[in-house]
Parts: sequence; C-alpha cells; structure tokens
Amino acid sequence: MKISIVKIGGNVIDDPEKLEEFLSLFSRLEGKKILVHGGGVMASKFGESLGIKPQMVDGRRITDKETLEVVTMVYAGLINKNIVAKLQAREQDAMGLTGADGNLIRSEKRPVKDIDYGFVGDVKEVNTNLIELLLAENIVPVVAAITHDQRGLLLNTNADTIASEIATSLAQKHTVNLYFCFNKAGVLIDENNDSSVVPLINEDVYDELKREKVIHSGMIPKLDNAFNALYKGVNNVWLGKAENLVLAAKGKSAGTSFEKHRYDLY
Amino acid sequence: MKISIVKIGGNVIDDPEKLEEFLSLFSRLEGKKILVHGGGVMASKFGESLGIKPQMVDGRRITDKETLEVVTMVYAGLINKNIVAKLQAREQDAMGLTGADGNLIRSEKRPVKDIDYGFVGDVKEVNTNLIELLLAENIVPVVAAITHDQRGLLLNTNADTIASEIATSLAQKHTVNLYFCFNKAGVLIDENNDSSVVPLINEDVYDELKREKVIHSGMIPKLDNAFNALYKGVNNVWLGKAENLVLAAKGKSAGTSFEKHRYDLY
Repeated sequence: MKISIVKIGGNVIDDPEKLEEFLSLFSRLEGKKILVHGGGVMASKFGESLGIKPQMVDGRRITDKETLEVVTMVYAGLINKNIVAKLQAREQDAMGLTGADGNLIRSEKRPVKDIDYGFVGDVKEVNTNLIELLLAENIVPVVAAITHDQRGLLLNTNADTIASEIATSLAQKHTVNLYFCFNKAGVLIDENNDSSVVPLINEDVYDELKREKVIHSGMIPKLDNAFNALYKGVNNVWLGKAENLVLAAKGKSAGTSFEKHRYDLY
Repeated sequence: MKISIVKIGGNVIDDPEKLEEFLSLFSRLEGKKILVHGGGVMASKFGESLGIKPQMVDGRRITDKETLEVVTMVYAGLINKNIVAKLQAREQDAMGLTGADGNLIRSEKRPVKDIDYGFVGDVKEVNTNLIELLLAENIVPVVAAITHDQRGLLLNTNADTIASEIATSLAQKHTVNLYFCFNKAGVLIDENNDSSVVPLINEDVYDELKREKVIHSGMIPKLDNAFNALYKGVNNVWLGKAENLVLAAKGKSAGTSFEKHRYDLY
C-alpha cells in the first residue's frame, strides 16, 4: 500500500493555532498515514516548572530518570492524547502509540561511550505487522517519540529517527513517502531567508553545501537521517514547513525533496 | 470469546512493589484480557507539586482545565506507559489506550446540575469492534481512565465506570468476567477486619447491609456499579484484593462475588 509518514516537531506542537491548522491539513492528506511527534520544547518548559533543567548535547537531550518521567508524561500523555482527540474530531480514526504499545518499536539503551545519554534508546526493530493491521482498519497511528527495550524500560528516542525507522521498515513492502515538517521552508541557502529553498537535494549538493558551511550543526543529523531513509528504500523524502504539507503531497514544489541519483547540478 | 476485565486503583499503582506483583499475577491470567486503571493518588500528589489542589465531591474529582492536563499526563502518560512496558517485559502484548484512541470510548461532558464536575465525561458508547480486533491479535488493551467527546475534548472518567461500561458492552456477544481490585479483601462486615468478607452478595444482602450502615459512602457507587454490570449481562463480577486475582479467576473464594438471583441467605 501507499503510506505517508509525517513528522512534526515542537514549532507546530507548542503553538495551539499552528497545531490546529496542521491537523486540518494532515486530515486532508489522502490515503494511509502515520503521524510522528516529539514535543521537546513543551517537555523542557514543563520539566523546568518542576525544577528539572534540560541538558542537551548536539541537539540531543540527556535523559535522566526524572526527565524520562517528564517526557513520558508530556509526549505520551498530554501531547499525544490531545492530538488524537483533535484528529478524532476531524473524523480521523487516530490512535496514539509509543514504541512500547503493541511492541511497536523495540530499542536498546544507548551504550555509554564519551557521553552518557541516560535513558535514550537506539531503534532495533519496528513491528510492521501491527502498523499494517491498524492501517488496514483505516486507523491513523499517532506515534510519540518513546520506545522500549522489551525488558520493562521506556526509552526516549529522537522523533526524526523514529519517523525514518518506521518509514524504512515499511518501505520493504510498501510505497512510503516521508515528510519532515520543521520551522524553515526547507534546506536554505541563506538560513534567514525562506525563499532561498533548495527544491531538490542529492548527496553531491549536500556535500557541497556542507563544505561551504551552508548546512551545519543541527541540520546535519536531520539531513543524514533523511538521506538514510531514501537509500533504504523510502520512495520520497521531503523537508519543509507544516503548512506546505498538502502542496508537497500533491507533488508541488514547496520545500526540499531528496534525490537519490547523483547528477551534475552545476 | 471469554474475556476477563480487571480494574486496578491507586493502592496497587502507587506502590511499585505491589504493582510488579500484580502485573505478574495479571500476566498469569489465562485467555483474553483487558486492564483498566485510574491513578488518582499519584495524580493528586503530582498536581500538588505543581500547586494544583485536588477537589473531590463524593469521591469524584472535580476536573478543571489544569487538573485535566495533569490527569492526562499521569494516567495516559506515566502510569499507562509504565504498565505497558512492564507487561511487554512479561511477554504480554500490551497496548495502552485512552477512550480517544481508536475512538474506544465516546463520552459526553457531564451537564452541570448541583455540582459542576468540570471536564468529566459520562460514557455513551464503547467501540467493541476495536476491542475485538485487538483481542483477536492477542493484544492486551490497557485502558487509562480518560475518554473523549469526539469533538476534540478529553474527559476524565471514573475507572470503575469505564471497566463496567467496557464489560457490559462486550457482554452482548461474549462471556465477560469483571474483577475490581481494591484495598480491602472484599465487601466486609467489619471494615477493619479483612477476614469478615461477604463471599457472595446479592441485592437482598446489599440492601440489608446498607440499612445497617455496614456499607456506606464510597462503597455505595462501587457496589451499584458492580450490580449494574451484573444486571446488564456480565457473567461474573468480583471485588477483592489484587493479590487474590488469580485465585478468584480459578473460582476459589477469595473476595466478594456478586450474585444476580435473589434467594434467602438468612
């Protein structure tokens, strides 16, 4: 089957108006679909109100026991259930899941090397049977960025990675389109100018943009993740603003699409 | 099919050791099963740490907007996902759900009469198709005591009521046994003496015990709820301590069973 996987981040989730607008767009997306969300900013704010300071290394959260509890409450509870209820109101049969639910995503606690990330999981296996079962019933899985190790431990996991892992697992049997919504219009030549979007990126262009330091810091794991999905069989990978999701799904240029085949753009 | 529905409350959930013990017992329960949980004490404590004072009227929580957020985080997030992960570690294919997920339980916000309960829902419809689908796949639904109105609102709902409504809905087509675990050994003649259990209760005995004020206050809605389930077709209703669940499931006397047919016990 044809499956769309859409990932949203804090910039949509934290703004009630933007979230409503996005959920209306997402509801209009045709065919089988899956929504993946994090919720970092809200978790940080909430943790702070409990006296827990967020610790980040290279854009990744260090997850101690208290932070894991906060993340579980905010991602799997507050954010996930509100999204589900709002989609249900739009006649979308949404169902909220973490990786623990129905053993959707099994991970392993990240081994400690230079940095101890704490309760953070690296994805090992996606239960595609469960996803196929739900999609066949026209259920819309809404996946919160938490996994489990099947030994009783919940683990915090990057939402981009979860979207990408679900996409590549399903791509073995299905045609999968993967949409990353974020706070910019796509990959930008000038990061402060939304009209400087690179509409099509391949690894040659990517390497060039990295060399020129046009692409740097937090964008690098994001783009590595996107290319990884593409090379593992995902049909189409897109990066852009949530409000352009439906345009992108219709094949209209409104963000950055990822191209596998190398050719000379210069 | 034969389905066991087990409801646990704060006295099991709030005590990590008791919870582990209960989940091991629950895992040993044979056949199709559903777990329903609240988590009131933990939500109250957590709300207080955020400066929200719990308001109760007749054992029912008054749910303002902030309390609803806390309840959603604690019930659907922290408690639900920890139970799911711990059951997965026991080779139970648990899946956590609120009433919003897959439109499992539709409710309506309780109308304001004498008391404004706030964001509290009265159950209108249980999606038995979804439950049948999951049980057929040997998935164990773990239901948090939150429902939705299908218009985007999450609503706090009493966990005993949810267990009972799921049970009576499924009882139309299936053989349902309903187990209420709580902090006493059953209905007691002397509320401070766990060995004074009434092993079998019918409405004659219930009326008599109410007249004698042996049964009073919070026990009355609990027992009304149990009798209601029985009269609506649930095969067997049981009330007792979580640690006696497996004994009770094997038909051994270890708590209070509810009897529909009236006969003279005196």
